[in-house]
Amino acid sequence: MKGTFLTEEHELFRKSLRKMLDKEAYPFYEKWEAEREIPRSFWTKMGENGFLCPWVDETYGGLGLDFSYSMVLIEELERVGQGLASGMCLHSDIVSPYIAELGTEEQKQRWLPGCVSGELINAIGMTEPGAGSDLAGIKTTARLNGDHYILNGEKTFITNGTIADFAIVVCKTDPTAQPAHRGISLLVVEKGMEGFKHGKKLDKIGIHSGDTGELIFEDVKVPVENLLGEEGKGFYYLMQNLQQERLIVASQCQVEAEEMLRITIDYVKSRKAFGQSISKFQNTQFKIAEIATEIDIGRTYMNQLTARHIDGEDLVKEVSMAKWWISEMAKRVAAECLHLHGGYGYMEEYEIARRYRDIPVASIYAGTTEIMKTIIAKKLDL
Amino acid sequence: MKGTFLTEEHELFRKSLRKMLDKEAYPFYEKWEAEREIPRSFWTKMGENGFLCPWVDETYGGLGLDFSYSMVLIEELERVGQGLASGMCLHSDIVSPYIAELGTEEQKQRWLPGCVSGELINAIGMTEPGAGSDLAGIKTTARLNGDHYILNGEKTFITNGTIADFAIVVCKTDPTAQPAHRGISLLVVEKGMEGFKHGKKLDKIGIHSGDTGELIFEDVKVPVENLLGEEGKGFYYLMQNLQQERLIVASQCQVEAEEMLRITIDYVKSRKAFGQSISKFQNTQFKIAEIATEIDIGRTYMNQLTARHIDGEDLVKEVSMAKWWISEMAKRVAAECLHLHGGYGYMEEYEIARRYRDIPVASIYAGTTEIMKTIIAKKLDL
Amino acid sequence: MKGTFLTEEHELFRKSLRKMLDKEAYPFYEKWEAEREIPRSFWTKMGENGFLCPWVDETYGGLGLDFSYSMVLIEELERVGQGLASGMCLHSDIVSPYIAELGTEEQKQRWLPGCVSGELINAIGMTEPGAGSDLAGIKTTARLNGDHYILNGEKTFITNGTIADFAIVVCKTDPTAQPAHRGISLLVVEKGMEGFKHGKKLDKIGIHSGDTGELIFEDVKVPVENLLGEEGKGFYYLMQNLQQERLIVASQCQVEAEEMLRITIDYVKSRKAFGQSISKFQNTQFKIAEIATEIDIGRTYMNQLTARHIDGEDLVKEVSMAKWWISEMAKRVAAECLHLHGGYGYMEEYEIARRYRDIPVASIYAGTTEIMKTIIAKKLDL
Amino acid sequence: MKGTFLTEEHELFRKSLRKMLDKEAYPFYEKWEAEREIPRSFWTKMGENGFLCPWVDETYGGLGLDFSYSMVLIEELERVGQGLASGMCLHSDIVSPYIAELGTEEQKQRWLPGCVSGELINAIGMTEPGAGSDLAGIKTTARLNGDHYILNGEKTFITNGTIADFAIVVCKTDPTAQPAHRGISLLVVEKGMEGFKHGKKLDKIGIHSGDTGELIFEDVKVPVENLLGEEGKGFYYLMQNLQQERLIVASQCQVEAEEMLRITIDYVKSRKAFGQSISKFQNTQFKIAEIATEIDIGRTYMNQLTARHIDGEDLVKEVSMAKWWISEMAKRVAAECLHLHGGYGYMEEYEIARRYRDIPVASIYAGTTEIMKTIIAKKLDL
Repeated sequence: MKGTFLTEEHELFRKSLRKMLDKEAYPFYEKWEAEREIPRSFWTKMGENGFLCPWVDETYGGLGLDFSYSMVLIEELERVGQGLASGMCLHSDIVSPYIAELGTEEQKQRWLPGCVSGELINAIGMTEPGAGSDLAGIKTTARLNGDHYILNGEKTFITNGTIADFAIVVCKTDPTAQPAHRGISLLVVEKGMEGFKHGKKLDKIGIHSGDTGELIFEDVKVPVENLLGEEGKGFYYLMQNLQQERLIVASQCQVEAEEMLRITIDYVKSRKAFGQSISKFQNTQFKIAEIATEIDIGRTYMNQLTARHIDGEDLVKEVSMAKWWISEMAKRVAAECLHLHGGYGYMEEYEIARRYRDIPVASIYAGTTEIMKTIIAKKLDL
Repeated sequence: MKGTFLTEEHELFRKSLRKMLDKEAYPFYEKWEAEREIPRSFWTKMGENGFLCPWVDETYGGLGLDFSYSMVLIEELERVGQGLASGMCLHSDIVSPYIAELGTEEQKQRWLPGCVSGELINAIGMTEPGAGSDLAGIKTTARLNGDHYILNGEKTFITNGTIADFAIVVCKTDPTAQPAHRGISLLVVEKGMEGFKHGKKLDKIGIHSGDTGELIFEDVKVPVENLLGEEGKGFYYLMQNLQQERLIVASQCQVEAEEMLRITIDYVKSRKAFGQSISKFQNTQFKIAEIATEIDIGRTYMNQLTARHIDGEDLVKEVSMAKWWISEMAKRVAAECLHLHGGYGYMEEYEIARRYRDIPVASIYAGTTEIMKTIIAKKLDL
Repeated sequence: MKGTFLTEEHELFRKSLRKMLDKEAYPFYEKWEAEREIPRSFWTKMGENGFLCPWVDETYGGLGLDFSYSMVLIEELERVGQGLASGMCLHSDIVSPYIAELGTEEQKQRWLPGCVSGELINAIGMTEPGAGSDLAGIKTTARLNGDHYILNGEKTFITNGTIADFAIVVCKTDPTAQPAHRGISLLVVEKGMEGFKHGKKLDKIGIHSGDTGELIFEDVKVPVENLLGEEGKGFYYLMQNLQQERLIVASQCQVEAEEMLRITIDYVKSRKAFGQSISKFQNTQFKIAEIATEIDIGRTYMNQLTARHIDGEDLVKEVSMAKWWISEMAKRVAAECLHLHGGYGYMEEYEIARRYRDIPVASIYAGTTEIMKTIIAKKLDL
Repeated sequence: MKGTFLTEEHELFRKSLRKMLDKEAYPFYEKWEAEREIPRSFWTKMGENGFLCPWVDETYGGLGLDFSYSMVLIEELERVGQGLASGMCLHSDIVSPYIAELGTEEQKQRWLPGCVSGELINAIGMTEPGAGSDLAGIKTTARLNGDHYILNGEKTFITNGTIADFAIVVCKTDPTAQPAHRGISLLVVEKGMEGFKHGKKLDKIGIHSGDTGELIFEDVKVPVENLLGEEGKGFYYLMQNLQQERLIVASQCQVEAEEMLRITIDYVKSRKAFGQSISKFQNTQFKIAEIATEIDIGRTYMNQLTARHIDGEDLVKEVSMAKWWISEMAKRVAAECLHLHGGYGYMEEYEIARRYRDIPVASIYAGTTEIMKTIIAKKLDL
């Protein structure tokens, strides 16, 4: 396993995880996709087995593992499907870290154990109907009023949006700050707070079992105890955490590409045309060789970045590279693999159909390809 | 309109067609997609207005127009959506011509008027579970037994498959013929014949309102009067008609690309980010300029080929070029346009989502990209 | 010849031109490339045969043909090689038209007959060391001083730069004009004028027989009689003529692609590997089918644009599309065709090597791909 | 330097090498390119400094370093230019290893010291006019005749072909062997042997200072002492060594891409248009971000494969992936970087011009892209 961060222990972890997924997730996944929901019981089952937030300190119920085990989790959840992985990885490795890093002792006690057990599902609200890539342009405001903030605004495209028990909401506590990003803070909004409404569940091309929704805030009173970190530092906190978020998304895309290749190789070897397996046609062989090459190159890159990320390196440029390149690669792989399935690839009963529908948003969320290129150009001093 | 086949009269025809579609199709299309069905009443409405098989001779109820008017029909139906166009264009301009060209007077009298009125919806059964591109490898057989054939076999991916009143079935009347394609014939199988079953309606990534099904034949007795043309000449008849079929599919892809560009231009002009319309970013401008270029080049090619096809030219090479290039182009356009919509493009409520799901099969049916390239190579004497 | 502008007469014209080129150009072209020069005797031979500026009015020695004959000329010269076509087409159909359109009777009498006979070779100086695409940013100035201008500045990348007998020089007669392009004028500078120096002949990757040089002006006195058109309207005149210039370059690229395909098909059919002609490998067949398709689509577009250009249509958008797409296509074709030649493609004795070296600048001169996309975006109202 | 094989010692080695190249190679390289020759004095200077075959055992004059130092050598020679690297890396790390691995003690004594000192330049003759990728199809034969072989045949595209003091010649000692590759052996042919003629020096698009020639054998008497390894095992020996050869070529392409990016970033930052540095245009930034990404991904892959190769892993699949992907990537980078230079990129005085001319053969030699994909497909069991 040269050039990777994986040890024997990781493989044991993976094995026990797979065993559980083989029993509790794979057999039901098609149903979850059709019902457009992962049952809460699966969340708590994952929690019971230590597969939510395994990196959380034992004080709060976690296993105290490092991020490398999260990577195994991400890979295996994605192997089941993007609808499962998207919400659960966001919960475990994107949102919960904000609590652990920025939270007061009281906040950590309050929220982390539930995140670890699966009793509290979380979300993060960044994007708004009028502001996607442009975070500094958000319109959601939180006006301090004594011991609470009055929160108003709207968030959209929120993973776990309709099921979350609490959401970290990116808002402007100082709408007049110059530059604008200095006025941004993070508030934890909890289910049941008055004026906090879940908008409609969004109907997407894919990731059907994944929950994506809207959050609506109308004069929600959020106690100051729910402020995460310092006021006005929200933008900075977000920037700090984007490296890991993007690495996770890149990893998910990498796994998607690998899975699509695997099922396509199976297909072309079994399918016959003109008297031979279609895997015998030079065109099929070359297309698959091309895909397999990009996947191996992508995998090598991912493993190296993960190892360096765990070591605490600043990899903003490299992770931006991985995010856009691997997500775009996975889209190319999806299109090619669907095509290699012939008419069957277009039928929902073939797994490639689902993965094809799942992938196109990967180059959009967690920072579009355009944003990634902009960051890279900046890092290259252009 | 230099370099095209379109005259003022075509534009009048288009105008009246659009008027009808604006009233009878556009407002209901989303519903049809959700219900996965085009109502039969819409078929007959189209028939009443002369918009089914307008090229059919007046003797059989048609308008006796040439193929150029069909092209206008194809374009306008596709503009509504692929689910509508796929079944209706197949009916009017792919299947019905077999009846007109090969049918005896009796056969024409029996079927054409219903095709024109919309009372008889038709289909054609070529593909089988084990034979897609490789027509000579089909397994469906028809054994002559006195005044009827005994038909056995299975067809899949059949457009209009579950709603068709009759289907032209490609089968082997001489399974031992050498070369194999010499044993192929065309039989018309009608709804209600004993042993003829519609298999399940297929669940596809897209083209939801379009009907795609399976046809199953178990000892179906097909009277010899239902043989189209001569026995053993089926393969030849199919080859004769593929030029028009592929030209139609190319035209549909061309229109899809045009529509996707149109809605994307609207989107990027209205959507703002970082303080300006996203249409103002150089990357957006260049991407759209690239798409617009390929579309204009594709359109020019389509119009020229259509004009030459109407003149009766042998365009097998050129139509194969158009089929693969324009379908692949439309797929690229779909991916790019979806991406330019940002997160919204992934939401079903945005039209781009539907068109993105509809397009990927276009490079597969009516002859895959690989088959097209094989034909071109042959025509180039390689 | 549907969809094209070509008639029988054009083919007669082409035939007689080819006959001459077969005798006077093809046998010597390799030598011209090695010597990096087209002999002046070949220019005058072309002139004698009516093959320079055939569109010029008979009053000035021309044949009074329309631009469609120029297109035939451009195609056939390019078929010999880009080094020949670049200078001669510029002379005949890019520079000379400025004289014909803007010149006074006296100017036309002075220069056109020589252009037609080949005794006066011309050039146009736009690009400067510090201003390529950005015409309004040029630094060459012409200060009016009584009956002459004092011209100072430097031009580079000038086709026919070291051999031209006269050059139309784009300069600022009003360097303070706002916007800057309103201060631009066109002056004809003639060989022998004091202070007018030809800089060094530029050493290029390809187009070796084509002459590319620098023009240097140090206090050159240019008589006011040498002003073309009105002072301050130079930018406008240039814009007017760019449509034709870009159409010509697109046509040249189209011919290059066609020639490269032709020689590559010959090569793969004759070359054997692993016991068969390499044209029999599916990969070879598909690559060539792809190239052939893009070429046929490009040719159709070119022919249609040419016909519309001759009719006087405003095709700025479409010609920009053709310019970038066909030049980029020709570059792809070159890379692929070189590769299909295996090691031989890299050897200068194979024609593909020369054409590969010739093509990469085609997407730069006469308006870069980036400028073309910018124009298209503007025309699309983005 | 995580994920790489490089240590501090390698960097010291690199530093001393660079110092020498800065003094002895860079200042003369343009001249060498123009004269189409690397002077022999430079070879011996490299030898004196320990920069030829540094891996050779000290017994034979080498430094006894491992392949990782060769990689540093390859990188730094390529940084100077492909014309230098191609011949010298072939000599040090492709041909000499055959002597070391297969040679008898006597053979090693005879040839290795000269290879290390630079007094004996070597080559390897595989390709023939009629057999490139298809090694088993070679026609050169060596008939055993007492104590020598009678060698007849012709080799082409031989790096160091006209300057080599000896060449390992791939020939058939048993032309009737079945399968054909079992009859292949390796003979060392030395300058001065009667009947051994160097054909003409080949005139290439690029790699001008690199020597590429033909070897002609007419009844050359090659003593049996010049047989390398066992008779009939030549094909096997070649396969054994191809992993390293292809890794070297991949490394060279990687360095080419890196150098082209470096000089292009310099260019776009210094060049101005429309009032700003062209590095400020979004299109420029995105293109460079794309290139930089592919280069970083390629570099990571190269470093990992090198480390694994040094460890002795069987990496035929992965090295085939690297060979084709990185060579094709370098070609894309070349085309893009040339274009970003505008007109200047087409001028020989700009370094990008040379590197652009050098690169296209990299996807052909040492195994074409097609051969690489064929190997990958085989390894994937397709």
